[in-house]
Amino acid sequence: MIRIAVDAMGGDYAPREVVYGAVIAAREWPIAIQLVGSPDLVSRELRRHNVAGLNLSIVPASEVVAMDEKPSRAILRKKDSSIVVTTRQVHDGLADGMVAAGSTGAAAVAAQIGLGRIANVARSAIACSMPTSTPNRVIVLDVGANVDCDSHQLFQFAQMGSILSKGLYHIENPRVGILNIGSEESKGSQLVQDAYKLLKAGGNLNFIGFVEGRDFPMGKVDVVVTDGFTGNIALKTSEGIAKMINLMLQQELLSTARGKIGGMIAKPSFQALRKRIDYSESGGALLVGVKGVCVIAHGGSTHTAIKNAIRVAADMVQARIVETIEKTLALTAAGSVS
Amino acid sequence: MIRIAVDAMGGDYAPREVVYGAVIAAREWPIAIQLVGSPDLVSRELRRHNVAGLNLSIVPASEVVAMDEKPSRAILRKKDSSIVVTTRQVHDGLADGMVAAGSTGAAAVAAQIGLGRIANVARSAIACSMPTSTPNRVIVLDVGANVDCDSHQLFQFAQMGSILSKGLYHIENPRVGILNIGSEESKGSQLVQDAYKLLKAGGNLNFIGFVEGRDFPMGKVDVVVTDGFTGNIALKTSEGIAKMINLMLQQELLSTARGKIGGMIAKPSFQALRKRIDYSESGGALLVGVKGVCVIAHGGSTHTAIKNAIRVAADMVQARIVETIEKTLALTAAGSVS
Repeated sequence: MIRIAVDAMGGDYAPREVVYGAVIAAREWPIAIQLVGSPDLVSRELRRHNVAGLNLSIVPASEVVAMDEKPSRAILRKKDSSIVVTTRQVHDGLADGMVAAGSTGAAAVAAQIGLGRIANVARSAIACSMPTSTPNRVIVLDVGANVDCDSHQLFQFAQMGSILSKGLYHIENPRVGILNIGSEESKGSQLVQDAYKLLKAGGNLNFIGFVEGRDFPMGKVDVVVTDGFTGNIALKTSEGIAKMINLMLQQELLSTARGKIGGMIAKPSFQALRKRIDYSESGGALLVGVKGVCVIAHGGSTHTAIKNAIRVAADMVQARIVETIEKTLALTAAGSVS
Repeated sequence: MIRIAVDAMGGDYAPREVVYGAVIAAREWPIAIQLVGSPDLVSRELRRHNVAGLNLSIVPASEVVAMDEKPSRAILRKKDSSIVVTTRQVHDGLADGMVAAGSTGAAAVAAQIGLGRIANVARSAIACSMPTSTPNRVIVLDVGANVDCDSHQLFQFAQMGSILSKGLYHIENPRVGILNIGSEESKGSQLVQDAYKLLKAGGNLNFIGFVEGRDFPMGKVDVVVTDGFTGNIALKTSEGIAKMINLMLQQELLSTARGKIGGMIAKPSFQALRKRIDYSESGGALLVGVKGVCVIAHGGSTHTAIKNAIRVAADMVQARIVETIEKTLALTAAGSVS
């Protein structure tokens, strides 16, 4: 059975929503879940649920890293914080993967320090799975781990993104694009120009060239690579625009009697739409390039988001993402492309 | 009466939609419109409408710059192309502002060459007015004129954006933010860090610090400054996500009988929503920093987009945007901030 360690103390609604999410995940799937945190607080939350027969355990951790602490310093100091202990479970082979909500920065730093980088990986990246207008999802990376990147790192992001797309979504030959301000070969910054050359030369990825911000939501590409600054802007702009349209839709429906009636009747359609674009359905961000499975859920995660993050972590273990990255990048490093 | 020169040959649906848009603009507002292009083609289009008493004239231009031509070369070679002649009308004082649809790059290059930069402006920028969930619009610049920027240029973008926000939307003290991956002072690239310091030190703008991609669609800021690479990604991602949600909404409504009925009843609300997020309502991108008013409409502009672009150009003339930029930047250059 796949074992996932969950930082029970991370996120805006911890430990309540984290424990709740873990309980429903354990009910739904054959996953052994380790809740890392204050035994008192976690067991108090567990008592709110019927956990008979579920594969849930508590791993004690006495400290907590707060949202406003500087990640790197806090991680190094608080050796018995829930995030550090969660990471240690994976590092020590006591868990197969981890889930943490809360500060993405703190979780990423903890995992980078605690798990270490896979050999030949220059930089780990945060990958995000986003919905498209087609049934498929698109993986965008990096969305925030590295403000500055070089072209070689973007090349490796393309490799890791392809492995995620294949492993998690069973897309046979994922289309890889570089995020740019135009699709013409001559456009863009030095970074994307250099990455273009590397990816064009570099062998066995299904590289389709430059893609624009308006392409990936339409499902025209399976993996989008970008530096962490641009990727983070694209991700958060997407969130902002989705929220804006949702609000506007409500405003318009509520502003007329006809809108109110139509909106009431069509409510299930709106709910289905919201589910498709809701981040809590996607399971959070995936830290790739570290020696272990690490899913970072949104700070505002409620139980559904936590439940889905646990499922995605288990999927990554099942798909052997870490092992495949290790093998693929070792081959590339040994081969002509470096 | 304000005189606007319009490149009648630019855009995917030129000259038909451009001429049509000009006709309805001339009907709706007291604007004298000069249609620049092939007299034969333009007058053939004009014959399709009742133009009695309208202030419309034709300015002949024998050549056209095609969408796939390299802008800088085409502009320098084709001295009698509609875009070059349109620009010349403004430069020679025969028109107060210009509107061009089609390749944003070609229009921007033509205006930069034909009009020249305002004194003390380091770089012209393309500003885009975007809808928010509030009744106000947000101005984002640069969205594509400059792939690389320095902090001084971002500072000037903030000045020019504020002038646009005041002049076009009558916002008294526009809130200015720098687009970044977090709102904390310590976050982001060297560029945004340096721009932060300049804007914090630099006097009389209402600088509110860093803003994220999820802030501006919520109307938390009036002017967003960013380099042209990041801004273009944010703009096109916004377009892509809006299009995706629109498609998803249709898919969900059409997938059930209840959705179809509710959707039919609520149709006016959806139309109102679409109008709010439709680029053709906003009138296109504004090239600022050049010695003249220049509005660049979307390549796919239909008559409504052209009509609105003409209105925005007239608004910019009325608000004396160019003169205010000239004065403000001369003062800053003479003062302590440079």
